Parts: sequence; structure tokens; C-alpha cells
Amino acid sequence: MVQSVRRAVLMLRELAAEGPGLGVTELARRLGIAKPTAHALLRTLEAEGLVMRDRGSGRYRPGPGLLQLGNAYLERQELRTRSLTWADALAARANEAVWVAVPAENRVLVVHHAFRPDGAVQILEVGATLPWSTCALGKAIAAFLPGPRRRELLAEEPPVLTGSSITDPAVLAEQLREVARRGYAVEDQESALGDAGIAAPVFDGSGEVAGAIGVVGPVERVLAEPAAEDNAVAVRETARNLSRDLGAPRGTGYGGRDGWDRA
Amino acid sequence: MVQSVRRAVLMLRELAAEGPGLGVTELARRLGIAKPTAHALLRTLEAEGLVMRDRGSGRYRPGPGLLQLGNAYLERQELRTRSLTWADALAARANEAVWVAVPAENRVLVVHHAFRPDGAVQILEVGATLPWSTCALGKAIAAFLPGPRRRELLAEEPPVLTGSSITDPAVLAEQLREVARRGYAVEDQESALGDAGIAAPVFDGSGEVAGAIGVVGPVERVLAEPAAEDNAVAVRETARNLSRDLGAPRGTGYGGRDGWDRA
Repeated sequence: MVQSVRRAVLMLRELAAEGPGLGVTELARRLGIAKPTAHALLRTLEAEGLVMRDRGSGRYRPGPGLLQLGNAYLERQELRTRSLTWADALAARANEAVWVAVPAENRVLVVHHAFRPDGAVQILEVGATLPWSTCALGKAIAAFLPGPRRRELLAEEPPVLTGSSITDPAVLAEQLREVARRGYAVEDQESALGDAGIAAPVFDGSGEVAGAIGVVGPVERVLAEPAAEDNAVAVRETARNLSRDLGAPRGTGYGGRDGWDRA
Repeated sequence: MVQSVRRAVLMLRELAAEGPGLGVTELARRLGIAKPTAHALLRTLEAEGLVMRDRGSGRYRPGPGLLQLGNAYLERQELRTRSLTWADALAARANEAVWVAVPAENRVLVVHHAFRPDGAVQILEVGATLPWSTCALGKAIAAFLPGPRRRELLAEEPPVLTGSSITDPAVLAEQLREVARRGYAVEDQESALGDAGIAAPVFDGSGEVAGAIGVVGPVERVLAEPAAEDNAVAVRETARNLSRDLGAPRGTGYGGRDGWDRA
């Protein structure tokens, strides 16, 4: 490990989490490093466009170079690039917004967002992350992760975003078993009041879960019958086609392989 | 400057520019560093999610952590957040796509993209960069930069993207004088054949140019009369309103101040 690089990344994360920016003294304090060290790191990151310094306040904020690098990630993300037309088709079929996400530590990262086709103003959620346990995308991914990794996730305390967020690890484990059995996951207002989702896992050429695709929208529409069943069928079919596009072997992932007996 | 941090950033840039990923030997060669040094940097970046290693090929690619950081930049980008509703209104008025961009070295970085309202499939260009001299957004920004910075940009050899890209610095300088006089810039297929743009500068609370906003679309629509004149008026009005939103003093930027006499 290269300590200064690790510190630079932690610095970027602190700045990313902080609205109005941070001064060098506060950054040094948060990282537990000397102020001259923090200053040298910041000057290097500023010269590379990864942080910007506000002329007025002297505080530091994330820089435009980060967006360019983030965009490079998106362009090389095979699940995303393969999902573009599938996501549009699913959005049209369900008449809801569609998200595609990949696992990112104990969260999921939205890598594509197809807007609901009705033309209403919608905010693009690409780059947003959500705790895995509070959304259908995260549960669809977690249910098909290798057993040890899934048990690691289940061992963490689940975050609470709404009164419907599931806090009992035993209930989450039972939900994942159900997801593995039927091939899709459901969220009922567990990350935001009024919002629901249905998602299914996507597998890559090695047969491992690469991410998930799903519909997201108002609970009254997404989970009301008969729409809910249609949505589940559409999501699962789309995920299966997308997996095939990524080279996943036929039948991958379904059937509760990989550690469910041992869970 | 912290050398290892600078090298880590250069490494991320190399990976961002490279489609299928790079191995550690090739990365070490490109950076002119020893292979163990490159390996230590890569392991640190991988542990932080900024690069990923392909299990099959062993090559490295940009990681999901970059997208999260890039998103943090977007969320804190005041020009972007203030431009959302203005961009939608301009897209509706012009019936074309609208881009908002900020300067990034000798390029412009797209920080917002409002789709053309006709509902056709469009690819989101947020995070893309273009040479300043080949697009209306870049020319709108360059014309209002402080004189020394503008002369630096004009001193570089202009890149050639199409047969219409302007290669003579004297012609570019004359165009910028014209942009400064009338308050908007035009691109006629200078970055991509068939595409045109009209853009105007946006100023911040300090009265400096923060970026630009403009319409982008097929040359037959964007630059055909009488649409072209309507588009120019709409773009300039939108840029002025957005500048006001950002706290720019009334009348900022217009009138060719700041070095044009000395240019």
C-alpha cells in the first residue's frame, strides 16, 4: 500500500461527502495527519484537477477531473453499455424508470438510468449509491453473490432509511433466500417513502452476478396488482436477456446454487 | 507535490484513455516507473475501488469509486445545479438538446445535458470533454476568459476533428472577438460532421466566466434561418438569466472588457 495515495483518496472521499467544501486544517484533522502533509496532498490533487479551491473561502471541493475519470469508468462498464437498449425497452414496457446497478462494497452503484417515458422532469441518478439492503437492486445482487460474501453483508447492521427499512438480519436472510428462489427482488418503500422497486440479477460470462436491473417508481403503480406481476415478469426476462448478452451460460444463477444449503 | 499521488493520477488517466484495460508492465512502461512501484500503486487504488482488475486477463480498468467521486463533483457544481430548470426550458423553447459546460484545461467538460424533448433515444454526454476551439461552448467561454488565459489557449495548436475545424489561430482570435461583441458563439460542424451549436457564456458572483450553456443539434435545424436567430436569442437570454441566478452583477461580461484592447 502506498500511504500518500491512500490518504489522497480518503481526502477526496471527505470532500465528496461535504457540501460547502473543507479547509486544509479541517481535512488534516479528519485524516489525522499534519497540516503541511495535507497541504502537499491538496496541492498535488489541485494541480491534477481532482480538487478545486474556492477563491473566496479558500475551501476545497471535488474537481472536474473526477467527472472525467468517472465517465471513463462508465464507458468501460460492460454491464452499462450492454444495458442501454434493454433498459429503454423495459422502461417502455413497464412505463417506469429503469435503473442498472453494480455492487460497490456494501452498497449498490447506479450505472445507468433510463427515464420513465412520460416525459416528466426526472433527475438522473447515475453515480448515486444506496445501501444494498434497502433496495430491490441490492437484494437481487446479494442473493446471488458467493455465499461467504453474502454472509459478510448479512453480518453488518442494516442501515435504516425509512420506517420500512428491514432491520432484522434474519428477515433479510429469509428475503434473499426467496429472491434466489424466484429470481427477482422487491423493495417496498425501504429506501424512500412512496418509492418501490422490482429488480433481477444480471450475470456475466463467468456466471457470476455482475449487477442488477430493475424498475423504480411510486409504490401505488409499481407494486399494485396486476402491474406488479407484469413488472416482475418483464424485469426477470430483461435481466435474463441482458445476462445472455454478457455471455452468461444458459440458466446461470437461478436455482439457488452457491452456498444456500450452507447459509 | 507528492510524487506517488501524481503518479497514481497519471495511472488513472492512462486507464481512462484505454478501452480494454492495461497490465501492470505496460502501465509501468508508460509512466516510466519500476514495475514493483506500479504494482504498489495499483494495489492501493484497487483497495479503494478506483481501479478494478479483470479476473480473466489480469488487466486493470477504471473502478466504480471514480464514478462516486465524479458524481460528488456534479452535485457540488453550482453552475450545473442552477442550470437544471433553465436547460429544460431552453430545450423546450429550441426543441433541441442543451449542454452546459465548464472549462477544463484546454477543453470544455459537459456537466449537464438536457435531452431534446422529442423523446428520441439520445446518449447522455455528461462527463464528455471537447477541445475548446471546436465547439460553441468552448468559444463562448474562451472569449470571456481573462486576457492572459485566453492568449494561452490561442497559442496552442488547434486540434482538427473535422474538415471544418478551425486551424488558423488568427481566425479563432477573430471569432472570439466577434463572440465577445455579440455575446454568443457558433459552431458549424467543427467537432462532428452534421452537428452544430450555439452557446453563450455564464458568469458567477465574482463576475468571472463560470461556463457556458447552449443548444446542440443537426446543422440543418440549428443554423437554418429563421431558427438560427431565434436560437441565438434564446441561448443568450438563458445564459443571462442563469448568470443572474449565480449572483453575477448586472451586465457582467458583455461589452468586451478584459484585455480585448490589449489582445
